[in-house]
Amino acid sequence: MCRFLAYLGAPIFLDELVYTPAHSLIHQSLHATEAKTETNGDGFGLGWYGDRDEPGVYHEVLPAWSDQNLRSLCGQIRSRLFFAHVRASTGTALSRANCHPFRNVGDLFMHNGQVGGYRHLKREIETELPDALYEHRLGTTDSEALFLMALANGLRTEPVAAMERTLGRVQAMLKRAGITEPLRFTSCYTDGEVLWAYRWASDDKPPTLYYRQEEGGVLVVSEPIDEGLRDWHRVPKGSVLRVDRHGINIEDLRVDIAVAA
Amino acid sequence: MCRFLAYLGAPIFLDELVYTPAHSLIHQSLHATEAKTETNGDGFGLGWYGDRDEPGVYHEVLPAWSDQNLRSLCGQIRSRLFFAHVRASTGTALSRANCHPFRNVGDLFMHNGQVGGYRHLKREIETELPDALYEHRLGTTDSEALFLMALANGLRTEPVAAMERTLGRVQAMLKRAGITEPLRFTSCYTDGEVLWAYRWASDDKPPTLYYRQEEGGVLVVSEPIDEGLRDWHRVPKGSVLRVDRHGINIEDLRVDIAVAA
Amino acid sequence: MCRFLAYLGAPIFLDELVYTPAHSLIHQSLHATEAKTETNGDGFGLGWYGDRDEPGVYHEVLPAWSDQNLRSLCGQIRSRLFFAHVRASTGTALSRANCHPFRNVGDLFMHNGQVGGYRHLKREIETELPDALYEHRLGTTDSEALFLMALANGLRTEPVAAMERTLGRVQAMLKRAGITEPLRFTSCYTDGEVLWAYRWASDDKPPTLYYRQEEGGVLVVSEPIDEGLRDWHRVPKGSVLRVDRHGINIEDLRVDIAVAA
Amino acid sequence: MCRFLAYLGAPIFLDELVYTPAHSLIHQSLHATEAKTETNGDGFGLGWYGDRDEPGVYHEVLPAWSDQNLRSLCGQIRSRLFFAHVRASTGTALSRANCHPFRNVGDLFMHNGQVGGYRHLKREIETELPDALYEHRLGTTDSEALFLMALANGLRTEPVAAMERTLGRVQAMLKRAGITEPLRFTSCYTDGEVLWAYRWASDDKPPTLYYRQEEGGVLVVSEPIDEGLRDWHRVPKGSVLRVDRHGINIEDLRVDIAVAA
Repeated sequence: MCRFLAYLGAPIFLDELVYTPAHSLIHQSLHATEAKTETNGDGFGLGWYGDRDEPGVYHEVLPAWSDQNLRSLCGQIRSRLFFAHVRASTGTALSRANCHPFRNVGDLFMHNGQVGGYRHLKREIETELPDALYEHRLGTTDSEALFLMALANGLRTEPVAAMERTLGRVQAMLKRAGITEPLRFTSCYTDGEVLWAYRWASDDKPPTLYYRQEEGGVLVVSEPIDEGLRDWHRVPKGSVLRVDRHGINIEDLRVDIAVAA
Repeated sequence: MCRFLAYLGAPIFLDELVYTPAHSLIHQSLHATEAKTETNGDGFGLGWYGDRDEPGVYHEVLPAWSDQNLRSLCGQIRSRLFFAHVRASTGTALSRANCHPFRNVGDLFMHNGQVGGYRHLKREIETELPDALYEHRLGTTDSEALFLMALANGLRTEPVAAMERTLGRVQAMLKRAGITEPLRFTSCYTDGEVLWAYRWASDDKPPTLYYRQEEGGVLVVSEPIDEGLRDWHRVPKGSVLRVDRHGINIEDLRVDIAVAA
Repeated sequence: MCRFLAYLGAPIFLDELVYTPAHSLIHQSLHATEAKTETNGDGFGLGWYGDRDEPGVYHEVLPAWSDQNLRSLCGQIRSRLFFAHVRASTGTALSRANCHPFRNVGDLFMHNGQVGGYRHLKREIETELPDALYEHRLGTTDSEALFLMALANGLRTEPVAAMERTLGRVQAMLKRAGITEPLRFTSCYTDGEVLWAYRWASDDKPPTLYYRQEEGGVLVVSEPIDEGLRDWHRVPKGSVLRVDRHGINIEDLRVDIAVAA
Repeated sequence: MCRFLAYLGAPIFLDELVYTPAHSLIHQSLHATEAKTETNGDGFGLGWYGDRDEPGVYHEVLPAWSDQNLRSLCGQIRSRLFFAHVRASTGTALSRANCHPFRNVGDLFMHNGQVGGYRHLKREIETELPDALYEHRLGTTDSEALFLMALANGLRTEPVAAMERTLGRVQAMLKRAGITEPLRFTSCYTDGEVLWAYRWASDDKPPTLYYRQEEGGVLVVSEPIDEGLRDWHRVPKGSVLRVDRHGINIEDLRVDIAVAA
């Protein structure tokens, strides 16, 4: 399990959200309160949109709390749309390539959750990827595989339907393989303009996911980063939050396992 | 604060103590129970005596729990005398040179504790070091400085008296500087034959320190690594445990602050 | 391209071969003379047989020349059979999982060379791996894929024939994919008792490979580590050197591309 | 020895100078042509001025050529004033704290050169630092010590005279200690507005230093990064180049060893 944070709104310095709050993401890297693991020290990553088409990414295997580079970067980088993620590995190796967020051309994706029995499904999931996407696989995590699979399923044009198809497909694989461990999926995806935050689990126990509307924008987090004046809202189980410049919208995620047959 | 482990006895593979026990040092790196900080993820280190005169040392900035090299090394290295240490920084930088144990020629030293207001005393402590020792300072920690100061005070020939002088001297510095934070000192030193484990604090609250006599040897730890049949004993406050091939001995540490005047 | 060294014989400290010689592997990491690249600074690795059944492995992304841990380990570890490897990436990521030697249960493998157009063949090669081996793939390199493929082809029982089949198969893939870049393969494999050193290329230009019989054993290297009294011999192109306790033997590698049809 | 680059002018993306040119700093990290060492693989660093008062810094121990974070950061960060540095250690440890540029409040400094016999002078140099500056020493290099000493000598208000005093003082120390190895000093300093580039050596053999006036600004480099249309000029030995928004100026460095008596 992991902890993450996504922001879309008026440009702000990253440290205002990543470091300053009382229960900031950096604080959560040592003391997460709503995660399966309190410590999220298996690397971290940033992804942000600046003045170029492609977002920047920064991945490091050190724990977030001890990286002075991260502190300096968060103090310098100002962005209208960014992702930050602290990792607690569920089994795959510690490497930069396994740190979130993952980038594909102009898109970013990050994930908190797990694919039950992933070790046995890894190959089958990878087999479904088109060559062009498989060539861009850099690491070995389930999270990156899900992202590439969703891209193959049309994530860029149908961000909700493509993710529904992907989850349905993987869930069907799990079923067929006789794996009883759940598929739990809480994630963020953006094409650089719109932000989608998904929350779903095959056992109805997805990791927590919250959002808050600020004056200048919208914040999505694994767990609240402070006890602010403005309220934190939960993204309901089995739904997806859509955020753009004009506001937010929540709709159901309709994962049909039969789709995968 | 940190957690550590020292062993002297019949040669054993390091993983038998570092990995296998239920509350092994690796487990303590994530879930220490008697330390100020539960997480000890700011690097780690090994020091061990093998077939050469000088001990080997291995230092890494990654958390101990995620280093596959450490696991492999502990599975291969067999030693009659070794130190292992997981670090929780009290302020100094994350770097290999700041990881314990510290080596000086054939000796090893590791520490768990703190020098109150070290930032302001660092220079004064360093000033007292003879040139020959100062040239061997590789890092910036209080722990390494205390080791070098103790060597200057005769640690090799008088392991108890030299440490008493060192603690007295530093405590006098603290006093003169008007620093009220305590000096807390729990540490291990070895010359490759005999192991000394010290426990002292200016406020009578030194970090915990335990030992256990095994069939083949003696084990010294920050906190018990299992609930074994054999009993764990506390090293009393203000005393030093001496271990060699023939057995153990405990004597008082007589720290005289006036000595420093 | 990379540089490597393998030794089988009476137990010696690793630093006698890895550090001490005038043109040691550490020297070659900065100043290789017979490699495509002078600098081999994209990580390194050790694999060695000690007192346990499984060999130890140590992988690091830092350049070999700047790793103090490596120096200390090579000064402590004594082995009758070990591999050492400095890496110059041909495109795949810098990560520990991509450092040689690769271990599979009790076996070690390391490689110097390249699979032409590997990026396009990666998937096809992986597809041929049995599930049980694919699950043990930790990195993303062509070298690890070749090792696993050779294991699938019977490397443990037929170390020569299995490698011939593997090279033939990959060469056939290259041909069918219309890739004209060569397959160049210079590698070492051991099961913990016998050492095989292969040298082959589809364009008859395999990387260099030398061996030398010492009093206590046999040394295999990418390029000579010194100008010793004893002579260095080239492993002939298209052949495999077999080394065990009793001596050496050289035989042809018969790579049949048709085998792959 | 090392290689570096400094820029002051209209804001540009860092990769335009750090990656794009034929003989960019990244290329120089593997293939420097005018340095004592061809390979500059002992870490690197960036320092840049953005939208905040303090500059950002990024330090990493990996070689510059293999760091994907560096590539992404240089593609995102746009700056009117920045330093980039690839390191070849002259003896001190590999650590982030030893990577250039060094920051002190709003200032940056980076260095290419050496203090002869630094190991024996380290302590004497450090002893001259005021407490307030000594507390900010993070690493162990001669370069950082020179920077702090220059700050103590008034670098902020008299950037030329303070450096003259510093060099004179250190040269006097070398002389008194009977050290015959030279003091070689090529460096850049900035307060965030003005850039000074110094070139001096006690043996009249300072490392190379070039500058070029561009349309939008001025570039200072250890060695030319391309064969552009605009000419590269050498900073003369024993002089300092001053660059601000309005243009450049060169004046002599008057290092008086007697000043140190």
